[in-house]
Amino acid sequence: MKFSPLVDELIQAFKVLPGVGPKSAQRMAFQLLERQRAGGMKLGRALDAAMTQVDHCRDCRTFTEEELCSICASPRRGEARQLCVVESPADVLAIEASGHYSGKYFVLMGHLSPLDGIGPDDLGLDILAKRLASGDVSELILATNPTVEGEATAHYIAELAKQHELKVSRIAHGVPVGGELEYVDGTTLALSFSGRQQV
Amino acid sequence: MKFSPLVDELIQAFKVLPGVGPKSAQRMAFQLLERQRAGGMKLGRALDAAMTQVDHCRDCRTFTEEELCSICASPRRGEARQLCVVESPADVLAIEASGHYSGKYFVLMGHLSPLDGIGPDDLGLDILAKRLASGDVSELILATNPTVEGEATAHYIAELAKQHELKVSRIAHGVPVGGELEYVDGTTLALSFSGRQQV
Repeated sequence: MKFSPLVDELIQAFKVLPGVGPKSAQRMAFQLLERQRAGGMKLGRALDAAMTQVDHCRDCRTFTEEELCSICASPRRGEARQLCVVESPADVLAIEASGHYSGKYFVLMGHLSPLDGIGPDDLGLDILAKRLASGDVSELILATNPTVEGEATAHYIAELAKQHELKVSRIAHGVPVGGELEYVDGTTLALSFSGRQQV
Repeated sequence: MKFSPLVDELIQAFKVLPGVGPKSAQRMAFQLLERQRAGGMKLGRALDAAMTQVDHCRDCRTFTEEELCSICASPRRGEARQLCVVESPADVLAIEASGHYSGKYFVLMGHLSPLDGIGPDDLGLDILAKRLASGDVSELILATNPTVEGEATAHYIAELAKQHELKVSRIAHGVPVGGELEYVDGTTLALSFSGRQQV
């Protein structure tokens, strides 16, 4: 015995979401059918609109339905000559929220991962190379995640930037503010020592 | 700074799902946009179809887009005079999978919960009362969850059925098969003793 075709189809369709298995999918479908029809309709319309209209920003590759995203299109950033490389649009949001950086971004939409078949071209590094060659960029800030893949990606891009004789920097690794030294892992602590700055 | 309008709308819309907060919603949106456009489109269509077309079965109240669900419409069950009351369509699926019951069902779509404003009419108990009065039912099996609310709901329905002088039974509580006595809670163990059957 199975649920009726439309209900079953909905449950199967939910399983495309990350972290959603058969049980969660079923719970989501029942919750929407029983209590949130309006919300479900809205989600359906939002999905349809986003999946068909959202594409990558021409300059920075973040998600946007316009040709340029709001940051790349902003006149205030027009003269910025710093370019910050991040892995995902969420990282852009986090850096913008910190309020300290006012340059432009380049979003890789992932990291180098040869085993998964993700090479330089999948991350748009050909577009990045053109942009570095154009001479609009004076400093490249590598803000990929401090993971093995993120570090490898940063290293690859650093090599690329050196060909264009650009200033390249990597964001600092060290003890996070508010953390306690006792609970910080050894690698981070070692990096916080090797990256110490004179007071 | 926010994401572009369509992306932001999609992230907000995902938050309608149970157990999905801002971070999960963002992850789901990015995953679909980056890697699963086809799956996202399919989910959008499935949502649209289910939200507009799925309604309750006329007889048992489970979800279906037909007037009667597959069980109520089955000729094999036409003469069944047992009616099993459960809380959700998923319970019907679980009981069907056990292969032991061949009667009909009545799905409450929840349980009595006065604090949340869920009363007898919200569970379709008026429909159930009519069905019991029709004389088509010879035995009512109460298979609501063994929780406080489930027990209260079962008790309420038992009283209702007694007005029609029907045989009413409650599924057995006891030690689950494959479990170890040592790890079974006290209430369940007590119930397994009071409900013991002669060998």
